[in-house]
Amino acid sequence: MKNNFGTNISWTLFGESHGPAIGITLDGLPAGFKVDMEQIKSDMDKRKATGKISTQRHEADEVHILSGMYNGYTTGTALTILIENQNTKSKDYSAFHGRLRPGHADFTAFEKYNGYQDYRGGGHFSGRLTACIVAAGSICRQILKSHGIVIGSHIESLYTLSDIPFSQDSRVLEKQIQEVNDKTFAVIDDQVKDQMIQEIEKAAAEGDSLGGILETAIIGLPTGLGEPFFDSVESILSHLIFSVPAVKGVSFGEGFGFAKLKGSQANDAFRFNDKIETKTNHNAGINGGITNGMPIIIHTCIKPTPSIFKTQESVDYLSKENVDLKIQGRHDPCILHRARIVVDSVVAFGLLDLYMSRLAIKPLQGDFE
Amino acid sequence: MKNNFGTNISWTLFGESHGPAIGITLDGLPAGFKVDMEQIKSDMDKRKATGKISTQRHEADEVHILSGMYNGYTTGTALTILIENQNTKSKDYSAFHGRLRPGHADFTAFEKYNGYQDYRGGGHFSGRLTACIVAAGSICRQILKSHGIVIGSHIESLYTLSDIPFSQDSRVLEKQIQEVNDKTFAVIDDQVKDQMIQEIEKAAAEGDSLGGILETAIIGLPTGLGEPFFDSVESILSHLIFSVPAVKGVSFGEGFGFAKLKGSQANDAFRFNDKIETKTNHNAGINGGITNGMPIIIHTCIKPTPSIFKTQESVDYLSKENVDLKIQGRHDPCILHRARIVVDSVVAFGLLDLYMSRLAIKPLQGDFE
Amino acid sequence: MKNNFGTNISWTLFGESHGPAIGITLDGLPAGFKVDMEQIKSDMDKRKATGKISTQRHEADEVHILSGMYNGYTTGTALTILIENQNTKSKDYSAFHGRLRPGHADFTAFEKYNGYQDYRGGGHFSGRLTACIVAAGSICRQILKSHGIVIGSHIESLYTLSDIPFSQDSRVLEKQIQEVNDKTFAVIDDQVKDQMIQEIEKAAAEGDSLGGILETAIIGLPTGLGEPFFDSVESILSHLIFSVPAVKGVSFGEGFGFAKLKGSQANDAFRFNDKIETKTNHNAGINGGITNGMPIIIHTCIKPTPSIFKTQESVDYLSKENVDLKIQGRHDPCILHRARIVVDSVVAFGLLDLYMSRLAIKPLQGDFE
Amino acid sequence: MKNNFGTNISWTLFGESHGPAIGITLDGLPAGFKVDMEQIKSDMDKRKATGKISTQRHEADEVHILSGMYNGYTTGTALTILIENQNTKSKDYSAFHGRLRPGHADFTAFEKYNGYQDYRGGGHFSGRLTACIVAAGSICRQILKSHGIVIGSHIESLYTLSDIPFSQDSRVLEKQIQEVNDKTFAVIDDQVKDQMIQEIEKAAAEGDSLGGILETAIIGLPTGLGEPFFDSVESILSHLIFSVPAVKGVSFGEGFGFAKLKGSQANDAFRFNDKIETKTNHNAGINGGITNGMPIIIHTCIKPTPSIFKTQESVDYLSKENVDLKIQGRHDPCILHRARIVVDSVVAFGLLDLYMSRLAIKPLQGDFE
Repeated sequence: MKNNFGTNISWTLFGESHGPAIGITLDGLPAGFKVDMEQIKSDMDKRKATGKISTQRHEADEVHILSGMYNGYTTGTALTILIENQNTKSKDYSAFHGRLRPGHADFTAFEKYNGYQDYRGGGHFSGRLTACIVAAGSICRQILKSHGIVIGSHIESLYTLSDIPFSQDSRVLEKQIQEVNDKTFAVIDDQVKDQMIQEIEKAAAEGDSLGGILETAIIGLPTGLGEPFFDSVESILSHLIFSVPAVKGVSFGEGFGFAKLKGSQANDAFRFNDKIETKTNHNAGINGGITNGMPIIIHTCIKPTPSIFKTQESVDYLSKENVDLKIQGRHDPCILHRARIVVDSVVAFGLLDLYMSRLAIKPLQGDFE
Repeated sequence: MKNNFGTNISWTLFGESHGPAIGITLDGLPAGFKVDMEQIKSDMDKRKATGKISTQRHEADEVHILSGMYNGYTTGTALTILIENQNTKSKDYSAFHGRLRPGHADFTAFEKYNGYQDYRGGGHFSGRLTACIVAAGSICRQILKSHGIVIGSHIESLYTLSDIPFSQDSRVLEKQIQEVNDKTFAVIDDQVKDQMIQEIEKAAAEGDSLGGILETAIIGLPTGLGEPFFDSVESILSHLIFSVPAVKGVSFGEGFGFAKLKGSQANDAFRFNDKIETKTNHNAGINGGITNGMPIIIHTCIKPTPSIFKTQESVDYLSKENVDLKIQGRHDPCILHRARIVVDSVVAFGLLDLYMSRLAIKPLQGDFE
Repeated sequence: MKNNFGTNISWTLFGESHGPAIGITLDGLPAGFKVDMEQIKSDMDKRKATGKISTQRHEADEVHILSGMYNGYTTGTALTILIENQNTKSKDYSAFHGRLRPGHADFTAFEKYNGYQDYRGGGHFSGRLTACIVAAGSICRQILKSHGIVIGSHIESLYTLSDIPFSQDSRVLEKQIQEVNDKTFAVIDDQVKDQMIQEIEKAAAEGDSLGGILETAIIGLPTGLGEPFFDSVESILSHLIFSVPAVKGVSFGEGFGFAKLKGSQANDAFRFNDKIETKTNHNAGINGGITNGMPIIIHTCIKPTPSIFKTQESVDYLSKENVDLKIQGRHDPCILHRARIVVDSVVAFGLLDLYMSRLAIKPLQGDFE
Repeated sequence: MKNNFGTNISWTLFGESHGPAIGITLDGLPAGFKVDMEQIKSDMDKRKATGKISTQRHEADEVHILSGMYNGYTTGTALTILIENQNTKSKDYSAFHGRLRPGHADFTAFEKYNGYQDYRGGGHFSGRLTACIVAAGSICRQILKSHGIVIGSHIESLYTLSDIPFSQDSRVLEKQIQEVNDKTFAVIDDQVKDQMIQEIEKAAAEGDSLGGILETAIIGLPTGLGEPFFDSVESILSHLIFSVPAVKGVSFGEGFGFAKLKGSQANDAFRFNDKIETKTNHNAGINGGITNGMPIIIHTCIKPTPSIFKTQESVDYLSKENVDLKIQGRHDPCILHRARIVVDSVVAFGLLDLYMSRLAIKPLQGDFE
């Protein structure tokens, strides 16, 4: 509901881009998990703005855990993360109040909150809030990892440039995930990295912006996570991924490619080795909305950042006049390289929520005796 | 949670393919809405299996409203719809118990429910349950329509064949939605209809199946529906659409096409006429997760039906042996033409849920005085 | 929310007193539990109207399980119970439409549903719906019992008459619970039974009604159930008990008696025998909202049935005129003896919901290794 | 769920007694409400520890609003309140780690969190967290008051001493509510105030503690709030009140007194003046779980503070040995005078949550046209 999501664990997000602080409360975490603060810092760094390919707003993004942790371990009570806003230049925005930035939430925020929204820097709609999601997601990913579940994303395509896709070979895939998780700019093929960065810098120079597609892989999942209706794994993960700003498309496995396959090509045959597996993985580890133990593969399309420096046609909401708009301030010409860890984080949250419910989804003899 | 979804209104789905009955409970509906039973019947007919392009299981699908309606009006209490299962041939399945149908939920159901699931005809995972969703969705669509919100879908592509996409011109779009809603086989271009039917029949003759892409349009929406985190319009609608069996991809507006656009191409400029509108609608009526009053355009990829009659490699879950599987029974060679009304129904539910909350999203002066 | 309650398991209640049927959907039950249909029937009988001390409306109350059960075991999917309404005499009520019965929901239903409510026999507000709660509660109690958790209630007081209270001695208490669970009229002291029945018959003869207090005991609970905020055991159980019609007071342990105790008298000292226990149990097995393993003792006050046959001052909602009202129809002069199993049922539901979450509430080492 | 509650608006509570800070997030508030910070301060003062009748821990309890407010108005996004912990003396507790304080949550916290809980000062179970509830509740009460709904509580009884109960006369009641809301020690009869304070000081001198009963009244309510199942007004309010530490009994109107009334005495006759009202108000403004427009009257029993300074029998959880326990530190000999505003706050939250849903509960013609 609204700024809260989750069944077995929940998180509640709060804050505005130029308010005193942003934060998130993770509730329902198990007690006794040792939180790796260094890992949180390293995950926060993956989201950090750096160089010419990101905004010039640089925030320390120091993570303060206000509750739910004691002596380095989760206590089992609500864990709240606070991140202060420091490098705010609100005057950049004051002039714009009323002038609707195309592609942004300015207009819808006016309509929804009737002008009472904190409009500075996009307020509650700012990508800034994803910093909290990354910090909370890092804890979720640490818990999942301690149970053998590993998540990783890379930039599969940026504008016209493409990276190598994740491998079908599970051993290779595991290695690729590890590698991209160690990189700041997450691509498998390092040569395409430089081209992508140049492409972003070129767009930035033009005062324009770029989008692309992230590919996310999850390995080490148990079978049986998810519900037939209405909480299929696809439903829960897409719900969370689509809550990340700028996401406009989500697909699983062959995704939209299924449209051009026949059933005989789309089905994944079962084979029994030491355990039951599928020979192929077109359905990306999910049958009937429930995990079958194979890797989950997700594609997420992120639109080009709406903040561009070209002059755009717009409207002043307050004077109700048409205006020519030239955006000032500090913006990202592309967010794919920063968004990848945000997608990993919401996916981790969704999977941990499902994972925590496995008692209830397994039969009595399994659970209660 | 599980078989229940919704915040302001909720629905709860129950039943198995070969049990005595399937049903759904709609809770939180406003009192005093006159339900059009004829419209429900007509919507149910759009989902009905017909001819060679669908399963040979033909069900009367008579809709019984057990509660929440009195003298033809909603009472405001929980409204339960019951549909009996009549034309069941369970023997078709008994032989298969343990033999996992590729692409189906047989394996994951075994893992999740440890063999206690009702496996007949896919049990709770059967597309059969979408009959309840269509009946409940019809009521939601009637309420939305009484407030000027209209939803319609067509088969944009089926295997290699494509229909005309929905128009960018709002007047034309309105007409197109009306037309496809009047058709049993929802395509805009009637010529492609016959080709698509032939293509399905051809696949059926080969014992194979086909998938494709549905395009859904919603017009007449107010501004301000949806929440920034975590209940964006995209989040709520994708959650519901991905709970429909066989859906593997969902996108909004330009969807995955955004990856190859620059910000200057992707943004929708604002213009003030009698009210604020966007000149283009790449973002499909949604900015920052909230409706801006323009049409919402959704693309949904539906994979080819996993039930094919070709011999497939599989495993017997009980004997843990590899087997060659040849599926018996009655199945759909394609479900796009039946699924279109199911997608309309879940979309209607999600939008009505958001619509019911507009009190809470509008400011006090607006609401409470 | 509304007709739905629960976090780990949920139930959704639907139906009206004079509609075709009433029902309930239990969602989130573990798969593989063998349901004892005989036990359900025996629990339903405890709620049945009998003799002169209950309404003359006699219903078969046959329980139909439409889903979520296969071959006698829970499947793990939504389990729906349907009970048909047969012995309805709606004409008894038609005359009353608009004439507000004091103490009933007639007025509030008019105000809430603006006249669209099904007013026949109280519609959705009828105690009739508790039949579904008893059937669903029976399944919950069976699951709890299979884990050693047993619930029982007796009529501690009826008007001026009192039964023996539950014993502080755990061995005696266990025996008392067993005894009252075997009785149709649940009192510990059989002599007070006849006096109570005479008192009810006397009130019935006067066209009046009586209320009283139920005492409920739960034994065999594990430690650690419940949440500090906002889902304390007291919060969850009182929420459910207060949803039972006619309940006006709920207390735990010494309850309102705590007001006249000092801390030194109210505290329960801890002692270590083979395990940690409290020497006394004033706090009724709950500290800080969480179970400590001792018996939970609840007192529930049930007001006298509002349906009396004396002439009462009232208003006709439609004509807005004051009227003298003399209620016709078939009513209970007292519901304590029938309500006791309803309270057991909602308590069972609430405890099972908390019990199902114990994975999430226990620390990682316990759960995940 | 856990630390989160609410349907239309929700709040999420976090923090521990001796952690860096405690806080609460209010989500779903309407935009555009002017928050009166002075009123929040004055409500916080009512909860403040003062004199010999309260703990010697004195906290500034300065309320920081981190989000959801801009230029003094609610923005409609999640509003987070933070209160720092300053006057903490953790060493007082370190010695006690393992030594279970009778009547406290020490034992259940150990069992639930397996020793990972922050035990200092009761950690998350501390009454300290109610400071956040008072701050958030103050905003809820301000919104309700702007719609004519007013809440007030007084100490109806403390140990053997009793105050004058709230009047049945609505004009007098309104005046009494106003008066008690202006008082720090909330009693109607100022003479009993001094006796009560002496009684508390006497108990404190003995190293003992006292409890009592709060009476809460709500006036100005619209009709139609609440749901028949499972969210009756009694259910929602009792759920919230029982989440307040030390509450052991909650009743409405005649409460447990209904047990000794006959139906003819318990029913509230309806009479039409300019609008429909009841002549008496035994049912405390609630019929069938829904408000009828008359005042709601609630009684809440608060047990004597478990922290007493007498030597008590206990157990050391870690060494599993019986011990004699003498509690050190700073504690309240009575919390009634501080708890009254906490009860007002949770009641305000519950009523505002129900109030926000009135769109959904009123029929279409009323709402949508």
